[in-house]
Amino acid sequence: MKELIIKKLKDRGVKLEAISAVVYKLQKPYSENLTVEECQDALEHVLEKREVQYTLLTGITLDELTEKGELDEPLAGIIKEDEPLYGVDESLAFAISSIYGTIGFTSFGYLDKHKMGIMKELDTSENNVNTFLDDLVAGLASAASAKIAHQKRTELNLKKEKLEEEDVS
Amino acid sequence: MKELIIKKLKDRGVKLEAISAVVYKLQKPYSENLTVEECQDALEHVLEKREVQYTLLTGITLDELTEKGELDEPLAGIIKEDEPLYGVDESLAFAISSIYGTIGFTSFGYLDKHKMGIMKELDTSENNVNTFLDDLVAGLASAASAKIAHQKRTELNLKKEKLEEEDVS
Amino acid sequence: MKELIIKKLKDRGVKLEAISAVVYKLQKPYSENLTVEECQDALEHVLEKREVQYTLLTGITLDELTEKGELDEPLAGIIKEDEPLYGVDESLAFAISSIYGTIGFTSFGYLDKHKMGIMKELDTSENNVNTFLDDLVAGLASAASAKIAHQKRTELNLKKEKLEEEDVS
Amino acid sequence: MKELIIKKLKDRGVKLEAISAVVYKLQKPYSENLTVEECQDALEHVLEKREVQYTLLTGITLDELTEKGELDEPLAGIIKEDEPLYGVDESLAFAISSIYGTIGFTSFGYLDKHKMGIMKELDTSENNVNTFLDDLVAGLASAASAKIAHQKRTELNLKKEKLEEEDVS
Ligand SMILES: [Ca+2]
Ligand SMILES: [Ca+2]
Ligand SMILES: [Ca+2]
Ligand SMILES: [Ca+2]
Repeated sequence: MKELIIKKLKDRGVKLEAISAVVYKLQKPYSENLTVEECQDALEHVLEKREVQYTLLTGITLDELTEKGELDEPLAGIIKEDEPLYGVDESLAFAISSIYGTIGFTSFGYLDKHKMGIMKELDTSENNVNTFLDDLVAGLASAASAKIAHQKRTELNLKKEKLEEEDVS
Repeated sequence: MKELIIKKLKDRGVKLEAISAVVYKLQKPYSENLTVEECQDALEHVLEKREVQYTLLTGITLDELTEKGELDEPLAGIIKEDEPLYGVDESLAFAISSIYGTIGFTSFGYLDKHKMGIMKELDTSENNVNTFLDDLVAGLASAASAKIAHQKRTELNLKKEKLEEEDVS
Repeated sequence: MKELIIKKLKDRGVKLEAISAVVYKLQKPYSENLTVEECQDALEHVLEKREVQYTLLTGITLDELTEKGELDEPLAGIIKEDEPLYGVDESLAFAISSIYGTIGFTSFGYLDKHKMGIMKELDTSENNVNTFLDDLVAGLASAASAKIAHQKRTELNLKKEKLEEEDVS
Repeated sequence: MKELIIKKLKDRGVKLEAISAVVYKLQKPYSENLTVEECQDALEHVLEKREVQYTLLTGITLDELTEKGELDEPLAGIIKEDEPLYGVDESLAFAISSIYGTIGFTSFGYLDKHKMGIMKELDTSENNVNTFLDDLVAGLASAASAKIAHQKRTELNLKKEKLEEEDVS
């Protein structure tokens, strides 16, 4: 299933490297020794989650059906013009972004308003419907960022707890 | 748009009265002078919200597309068998249930496990795909219940505050 | 209760005008004829919600208890240093931001990373603990923005539906 | 930190075994070969998450402060009587319940209305304030259930995918 999802993303113009680049940009200010490989690893981890896979599949399918004219009105028009009160794309992306806890969704809100890199390309792509995809990518990048934040902080906390234990003894 | 949604629900076998009946059953234990009309009013209020309308439209469309065989695999199979790790139906219903705040989603979780009335009928309907619809109905009933809980409590609190003011003076 | 909350906010250095200014900055790009009064009105509406009042009260109390040294360790230290994995402040703010539906929480995520106006002041205030307060203010501003977005869009949609009806007849 | 949390729970009358028993009751209908040890393991896993630890610490502290009379009015009264519109306890429990994705929160809603085992004891304990604790326990049990559901389903899916691959070759 994971391979299918990665292929789907690529078919819609999104390579994993482009998402990792967003993760790197998001997390670099908080951990100076961060590498692009760690971002890629975190992203791969997110993509292994069944719930994430299913959510991506659903959102991408809705974009594709709209693009091919296979959805009825008024839903087709609402998705095509990315109606501001349409919240389903955000709901799906939110579910992905918070797969490692609440800290993921703040990154998502930020990316949603402050599109960068691949997200900007998707947003300005004229011929495709990417109403779901840009949010889903933001969700993936946020979840991977959350994973990294947890890892880095856990390492730090373990170090601190160890120091305190040594201090006591 | 509201009329369209009510028609869509009816075409899928869900009359508003059947949802109101679930609301009544949920809220009656907490407010003894509750009437079915109040439940219907609260439900109508929920259905006026744009975000609720759009979410219903999306979920029902996914059920219909699956039923008509217009979705590709593996998504079609996942929705048809209501795969336990598929969370998109719950995400959409959650968004509806919490349209008046967090108190709505606990009712939703309860209804999701403890299907009653129309929800039971939908769940056991053999020929239709209602993977989204049963959760959406639970979301609507939960939101309407939350609206009633807020109203009843606000009335009570205002009464209490008034009594306290009179007490002071 | 509303008056008590407004007083509490003021005692902690947050005037409603300062929050309205954030709302105005957030929503102005999307509706050019927006006024500061509309932002203030939307904010007042948010502050009338019981659930919002209770959530604000809880968060501000946790800031105050930490400030006065009345919380035990390790919780006191975690709140004081705004530990990145501490998510309770975001959870409370999230509940406020989504009181009018999912569109509120994307603004919240944006504000959380991109602090502006009063939020910046709170964040750099040396003598006070504002771990909860800055997020709560972001939540309030996001909820008020969502309210405005719904109003403006509903007006627009009603206008469009009316035009289409006239078109048909 | 994990040991501290386990001790805190025990001091408030909640042994891990009692929570595992709720998990077992919740998940047994879905996986017949489930053991109590698996439930205990899943629960231990949940308790290792920093965000879960911090959220538990905050909720339990609010119960304790209320019990000791160290919170001001009106918050003290609101927490003590578990005011129906007070949603902070549900928000915290929701964050815990969804630490493995959206499927956790439906169990939470169910447990919240249908208190069982240790949750019932907490709810009827006369001398203690457990407004937060009963919801937090429901959140822990729901998260552990979600973990088990993911594991069981992933095993099943892997088996199915393997069978399909063999079928093709
Ligand atoms: Ca979008
Ligand atoms: Ca379903
Ligand atoms: Ca904060
Ligand atoms: Ca409670």
